[in-house]
Amino acid sequence: MAMADMQISPTDDPRGSPGKEQQAAGVGILLQIMMLVLSFVLGHVLRRHKFYYLPEASASLLIGLIVGALANISNTETNIRTWFNFHEEFFFLFLLPPIIFQSGFSLSPKPFFSNFGAIVTFAIFGTFIASMVTGILVYLGGFMYLMYRLPFVECLMFGALISATDPVTVLSIFQELGTDMNLYALVFGESVLNDAMAISLYRTMSLVRSHASSGENFFMVIVRFLETFVGSMSAGVGVGFISALLFKYAGLDIDNLQNLECCLFVLFPYFSYMLAEGLGLSGIVSILFTGIVMKRYTFSNLSEKSQQFVQAFFHLISSLAETFVFIYMGFDIAMEKHSWSHVGFIFFSILFIGVARAANVFSCGYLVNLARPAHRKIPLQHQKALWYSGLRGAMAFALALQSVHDLPEGHGQTIFTATTAIVVLTVLLIGGSTGTMLEALQVVGDDHETPLAENFDGNNGYIAPSYDEEASSGNRLKMKLKEFRRSAASFTAIDKNYLTPFFTSHNGDEDEEDDPMPSSRRGTFRGRG
Amino acid sequence: MAMADMQISPTDDPRGSPGKEQQAAGVGILLQIMMLVLSFVLGHVLRRHKFYYLPEASASLLIGLIVGALANISNTETNIRTWFNFHEEFFFLFLLPPIIFQSGFSLSPKPFFSNFGAIVTFAIFGTFIASMVTGILVYLGGFMYLMYRLPFVECLMFGALISATDPVTVLSIFQELGTDMNLYALVFGESVLNDAMAISLYRTMSLVRSHASSGENFFMVIVRFLETFVGSMSAGVGVGFISALLFKYAGLDIDNLQNLECCLFVLFPYFSYMLAEGLGLSGIVSILFTGIVMKRYTFSNLSEKSQQFVQAFFHLISSLAETFVFIYMGFDIAMEKHSWSHVGFIFFSILFIGVARAANVFSCGYLVNLARPAHRKIPLQHQKALWYSGLRGAMAFALALQSVHDLPEGHGQTIFTATTAIVVLTVLLIGGSTGTMLEALQVVGDDHETPLAENFDGNNGYIAPSYDEEASSGNRLKMKLKEFRRSAASFTAIDKNYLTPFFTSHNGDEDEEDDPMPSSRRGTFRGRG
Repeated sequence: MAMADMQISPTDDPRGSPGKEQQAAGVGILLQIMMLVLSFVLGHVLRRHKFYYLPEASASLLIGLIVGALANISNTETNIRTWFNFHEEFFFLFLLPPIIFQSGFSLSPKPFFSNFGAIVTFAIFGTFIASMVTGILVYLGGFMYLMYRLPFVECLMFGALISATDPVTVLSIFQELGTDMNLYALVFGESVLNDAMAISLYRTMSLVRSHASSGENFFMVIVRFLETFVGSMSAGVGVGFISALLFKYAGLDIDNLQNLECCLFVLFPYFSYMLAEGLGLSGIVSILFTGIVMKRYTFSNLSEKSQQFVQAFFHLISSLAETFVFIYMGFDIAMEKHSWSHVGFIFFSILFIGVARAANVFSCGYLVNLARPAHRKIPLQHQKALWYSGLRGAMAFALALQSVHDLPEGHGQTIFTATTAIVVLTVLLIGGSTGTMLEALQVVGDDHETPLAENFDGNNGYIAPSYDEEASSGNRLKMKLKEFRRSAASFTAIDKNYLTPFFTSHNGDEDEEDDPMPSSRRGTFRGRG
Repeated sequence: MAMADMQISPTDDPRGSPGKEQQAAGVGILLQIMMLVLSFVLGHVLRRHKFYYLPEASASLLIGLIVGALANISNTETNIRTWFNFHEEFFFLFLLPPIIFQSGFSLSPKPFFSNFGAIVTFAIFGTFIASMVTGILVYLGGFMYLMYRLPFVECLMFGALISATDPVTVLSIFQELGTDMNLYALVFGESVLNDAMAISLYRTMSLVRSHASSGENFFMVIVRFLETFVGSMSAGVGVGFISALLFKYAGLDIDNLQNLECCLFVLFPYFSYMLAEGLGLSGIVSILFTGIVMKRYTFSNLSEKSQQFVQAFFHLISSLAETFVFIYMGFDIAMEKHSWSHVGFIFFSILFIGVARAANVFSCGYLVNLARPAHRKIPLQHQKALWYSGLRGAMAFALALQSVHDLPEGHGQTIFTATTAIVVLTVLLIGGSTGTMLEALQVVGDDHETPLAENFDGNNGYIAPSYDEEASSGNRLKMKLKEFRRSAASFTAIDKNYLTPFFTSHNGDEDEEDDPMPSSRRGTFRGRG
């Protein structure tokens, strides 16, 4: 899958002793593969014995931590050690794309689109709230000498990067235990889309910071944010549509062209990612939307065998990348220099992100419930579960690592250390306690929420019921929200009447055959690592 | 698939402007993906129209050459250009492993093992002859002022590296046209194994060269060669056997563990490769034998779905890597500085490798025919086809690129330029004319060689017929050869009675179900790029 050499800098010269270098690389990679195998086997054994207190992600993180600590103590050769370090280029160019694509690609369209309004509210509006609340609290904390003091823009950058949640562990436990389908769709959809939002916010704040001297106004900030978000989204959706048309008309779905079909199919996501990066946009946002579009339209233009193959292929690649990311993260946390002088910063950050996530979930939950008819409201225990499932993972880590380069004078280092601590704590603690939490909230088990589950069938016609009868009884906010919901419903109508017939060989009438809660080990519904 | 960062050197610092670097990387990779897509589409269109004069490999090479020439003329930004360069680390660590593994993995055991003696003769003994003949002729040429003069050891290094043949184009045309199964097995098996031999020889000669001052004797040379070859082979076979036992006893072939099964399966080849590299052996030789062993034993311990998947997976990965290598090669040829001052060297080298390959094929053909019973002798037109199919590809190119670092004073540069020219000429000329050649030799069409094809069934019992009746009539050489053949036959008996029952869940009785000449686009029988 790797497409080009990582040796960017022209200054390094491997010509000294390529044999020696290659041998060191071999040893480094060998150890990494052994850790990968160990993680998979350990994860499997733990799951077999239904030991939910140490999910696979936590196990991988621990393995990385332990091996990193050992490597730190022992006197490993430096050139072997170099092969272990966390390099953002490698992470952003080769590990993250398959993980993010898979999270878009494994979205099951029906539950996702029937909760579309709520998901978008939580992911876009809610993430914005969470970022702002965290940023402001951290700034105030610094102002009151509770914690290390950062400039306001840098507080907002920290708020943005720490708002990217990572549901992989929670979702895998959801799958093991079985939970309400709407809750699952909410948690999954929110965490998929909120990365895009967090990245765009982080980038925007970073730009604001570097242009602070030239005095950009608030309007320009919004323009920049829209540029990143809408531009990347359009690029991703555009590439997805092009791929759909290509596979619709190229006639590759005949028998012995399976390999050609699959080769072309797997190149498109990477194309989308690199296109956005090349344009200076966010590749991650772009590939995410390419994943959603390719699953909805391109996928059905493939031959049946290729469909099975690409699904298993992306699942495999993203599992490997994800496990590797957790190992890598643990290893790097054990190896990097951290500035532990600001323990207060870490403590209060954890407190603040909890508050910020509550502000996100419960305010957006309130808004969504205003717009929804009585029988479809999001119950409080679902909101609590959503609040609880906000652990931080690879995306926050990667952005924090980037902030080390973006911010001067040890500010980035402080943010990085705090993020690292937050990632480890949330993955280990929240990951380990999710099972208990889900049982305490009584959202375990598939069938006990029948009224909600029924809604899926009620929604099959793609038009949510009971709009007009309630329109007069609401206040203005309610009216606005209903309009928004209506537009979401009309989007599904456009999808059915125009997009599906145009981009696929089907007429848009048939149901998606996806089993929304697959029983596979790490289900088709995936989070990101 | 990529497992670690390529930024080996600690001297380079991407911290300057990671955003800018990443954008340049994005543009570079984007162009590479576009070339890949173009190659696949072009190759498909050409094959559709049965235009055999420009096979896919040639098309990819030409695309790379053209884009490289354009990039050379135009004023591309240097940091984008850096993303295109051919780096040995990237090539050896990420592109070559899947290609070589696939060539071992796609070996169809039955035709391969029933021609085992002949293949080993051609690959081991024949490649040794070809290397020596080329090396000596080049040395003599230099001695007689016909061409650039190189020291004797360097001539042997050149002889070794240029003896690595690349059958991808020829084999894909064999498949399109349909040819005799024994001929196919010979061409395929020989070119798979001769890479291992060529690499081991090259490494040995390189070691001899660097220790020339300390005066190693001939005995040590042989020990070093055996160290590389046998050591790498044992590592590969060992890893393959371990994987077979793991999958036999882990009980992963139940329904919902497919992803775990596949994840572990795809990690083993890479493990074998890196293990050998880490031990200072040849990863390529090792992964090749891992491929053969995993196909024979591990593969049958997988669940049926996983079998389908891993087969398609390795096929896909190696197609991508292979096409990419040809593009990459063309691009690099257009970009690198070449010392064209030694045109004589190129001209005579081409002549000499033709002579050397004739010495290989016809002498080994003679030996093999001495040992074979009358109805199984290799006909002359098969030997001619084998001689003709010796085009040079990625392996020779990669070794030549390495020789630029290994050899001083422009010697490596001369070898590199000559190899480059040979690769381009043989891929374009031989690749383009294979169809015509096969028809001229009348080896096209599957069924016309029924006596040979029948032998497969005759050999099912794994013991070649008619040994003893002829034993008394031969001379001593013939006796020796028969003993060798007998040992090959006893190997298959060991395989059937001990290895297969031990390493798989089967009893070794059932037939392999492989269709030996698959009709897929680029069949399961693959060469290397």
